[in-house]
Amino acid sequence: VASHLAIYFLSDYGNADEFVGVVHAVVHRLSPTTPVIDLSHQIAPFDIAAGAAMLARAAPYLGPGVALAVVDPGVGSMRRGIAVRCRGDGPEWLVGPDNGLLVPASRILGGASHAFALEPERLTTASVQGAAGRTFDGRDVFAPAACHLLSGGDPLAIGAAFEVGALTNVALDDQTPGPVPAAGSSTVWATVVWIDHYGNVQLDLLPSVLDEIGVGANSRATVVVASDPMSRPTEARRVRTFGELGAGELGLTADSNGRVALVLDRASAATHLQGLRVGVTVRIDAAGR
Amino acid sequence: VASHLAIYFLSDYGNADEFVGVVHAVVHRLSPTTPVIDLSHQIAPFDIAAGAAMLARAAPYLGPGVALAVVDPGVGSMRRGIAVRCRGDGPEWLVGPDNGLLVPASRILGGASHAFALEPERLTTASVQGAAGRTFDGRDVFAPAACHLLSGGDPLAIGAAFEVGALTNVALDDQTPGPVPAAGSSTVWATVVWIDHYGNVQLDLLPSVLDEIGVGANSRATVVVASDPMSRPTEARRVRTFGELGAGELGLTADSNGRVALVLDRASAATHLQGLRVGVTVRIDAAGR
Amino acid sequence: VASHLAIYFLSDYGNADEFVGVVHAVVHRLSPTTPVIDLSHQIAPFDIAAGAAMLARAAPYLGPGVALAVVDPGVGSMRRGIAVRCRGDGPEWLVGPDNGLLVPASRILGGASHAFALEPERLTTASVQGAAGRTFDGRDVFAPAACHLLSGGDPLAIGAAFEVGALTNVALDDQTPGPVPAAGSSTVWATVVWIDHYGNVQLDLLPSVLDEIGVGANSRATVVVASDPMSRPTEARRVRTFGELGAGELGLTADSNGRVALVLDRASAATHLQGLRVGVTVRIDAAGR
Repeated sequence: VASHLAIYFLSDYGNADEFVGVVHAVVHRLSPTTPVIDLSHQIAPFDIAAGAAMLARAAPYLGPGVALAVVDPGVGSMRRGIAVRCRGDGPEWLVGPDNGLLVPASRILGGASHAFALEPERLTTASVQGAAGRTFDGRDVFAPAACHLLSGGDPLAIGAAFEVGALTNVALDDQTPGPVPAAGSSTVWATVVWIDHYGNVQLDLLPSVLDEIGVGANSRATVVVASDPMSRPTEARRVRTFGELGAGELGLTADSNGRVALVLDRASAATHLQGLRVGVTVRIDAAGR
Repeated sequence: VASHLAIYFLSDYGNADEFVGVVHAVVHRLSPTTPVIDLSHQIAPFDIAAGAAMLARAAPYLGPGVALAVVDPGVGSMRRGIAVRCRGDGPEWLVGPDNGLLVPASRILGGASHAFALEPERLTTASVQGAAGRTFDGRDVFAPAACHLLSGGDPLAIGAAFEVGALTNVALDDQTPGPVPAAGSSTVWATVVWIDHYGNVQLDLLPSVLDEIGVGANSRATVVVASDPMSRPTEARRVRTFGELGAGELGLTADSNGRVALVLDRASAATHLQGLRVGVTVRIDAAGR
Repeated sequence: VASHLAIYFLSDYGNADEFVGVVHAVVHRLSPTTPVIDLSHQIAPFDIAAGAAMLARAAPYLGPGVALAVVDPGVGSMRRGIAVRCRGDGPEWLVGPDNGLLVPASRILGGASHAFALEPERLTTASVQGAAGRTFDGRDVFAPAACHLLSGGDPLAIGAAFEVGALTNVALDDQTPGPVPAAGSSTVWATVVWIDHYGNVQLDLLPSVLDEIGVGANSRATVVVASDPMSRPTEARRVRTFGELGAGELGLTADSNGRVALVLDRASAATHLQGLRVGVTVRIDAAGR
């Protein structure tokens, strides 16, 4: 299979303003034959952890090129803009703010081998208007940096090397699943890490852990939102597909990222249990043991 | 006019998660020079009829290549994934679930000549993670199938032929407009098939039927939501363009798909009549006869 | 830097329907190697001023090609569809309705040198269905016109020249910032021209005017929504970056378009002051003078 370089672009810019389109336009001027593939721009404003988790989920499917990610509450401050080189066969470079956004994806992409602190004054193009403030680094710093690196430019021409160990990290439970039950226990606690568009609720739990606590194929369990005193224990069944579930029946299934998800058939699991939202703790008990 | 192959992509994935971007990334790895043109990903979750109607509306404007459509409440179940070959000069292939989603478009694209049941184990790429469930066939099955067919690959290498007559159908009033009034009648019943972003209300009605019941150019009619007992008959006028309407005046016009639509000038017709939504029946009577 | 032609596309079509995708498909058929870069399609329906302002903000970042903009409450009426040639080194052509949408961008793009009134009957392609109404000029007129001009086609083959002075204008305070304070005054009135996705509130005010009234770097001012009698004067501080602000502190900063914006750090300024919305007048007084 042939492969061409691409820029993979994720942000919290939303799709209502022209921010995403202007970044595409800047890339097109600097690197006219490079496709820009949008992962999503609807990360909640400033939600670094959600952006980091999305980039990590997408990472195994990205080809060679640059991942450009901007969720950047510190734009214009002293936080560094960075380029991180990875060892894997996906994108060679990750570009964005040094706030932890890029770290989980870098682990999945073979690990970070080099890090560079971008120097905006070497990147900002003449097209930036005289009186404009430093509030749109995606346009003015990160997109030009991505194009420079994509074309094989020397990273030292746009930034200063630093130790990868000095990268700002971000807590992201999703990346190190996850809870390990006590030997012989029939209970496990897990954290909600993502609720998708359909209301599927992803946990930081590997399917194998369900087996360990005795919730194998087709077995039943009770699920409760541990952090919500009003939450009522709800029966769930482990299934392979949505279609095995009856109407309104809660399921536990391995999702497309290899994590356990709470699901309903053709309905939202997120609204089925009171108190479910990203970050809360869920307790799962094997039934009838 | 020169033409290049493209993938035309429609789904209910939404734009908030990375689903659409990951499918683009998978296509880019397998078929780096193929553009992916997004029709829309905001079909309501699991609304097969809405997805089928949208694909059919767009079909006359699509060029050669593959239409990739995923509205798939049965993902992971025994429902077939399919590739359907069409006879027209638009996309040669339609790829998606066998739930009726592709059928109306196939009729518009010259009719289905061949159907193949995809065999996922021949398509799923190594990039799919070990423990991942079968919940993302767009990424794991349909996109690889689209790329295989786009490159001229043998359909029998990825699926088994079956009779096109065995394709799952879906009720879709939009495709066979529509109501035929009794001879000499001044009344017709029609069904709402689509409400667009502006609040324009498309009916399963050809403009010629309005002529038949006596609602010719600039003629008046009364419109009532027949299925809503609280709906009040509202006067409407047949117009060629929105601009002919006064403020708050309801219009009947031929829309850009050649169907009759209820419209207002610079306002939403959908909220103008109580009870208007997709699937309801509207009664139209010529005025003053 | 090499440059390739592109079509830059802005509209109020929204992303829920297939409108945007169908325009992309039409362009792909007529001009298969031309990238279409979406600026945004979430302009509020029929909001010409918002579309014109967005196109003008994006204009300095666009490369050679055609800007295709459709916010068109008069579609199908007698309003002209137009192609405007510009003198700058960005897009050579602007294509859309003659309702003022293109005018502010044309000024930024070097000024309009020629204008042509499109003749739809020379453009509408055979793919338009027989009974279809004239309600989708983006698909039927503007996209084909953009492709014709992009390929170097003679504008007189698709329209009639007219004087650029006869272009329909639109009031757009954003383009001629803006209020000029009286000499020695410590007060200025400004108008809200844009509220972005993050709740940043752009004013029609150049940062230099803040200096003139005595609100230099790090100085304080009071801000009040002059047009809302319930609005309470709120203290603000002039900053260079969001990060200089304390929690809940209102800032005045130079934004990425070189205008003054009201901002908060990691929060919405738009909801911080009662009555803030596009079009209202804000009064800014230097504090302690």
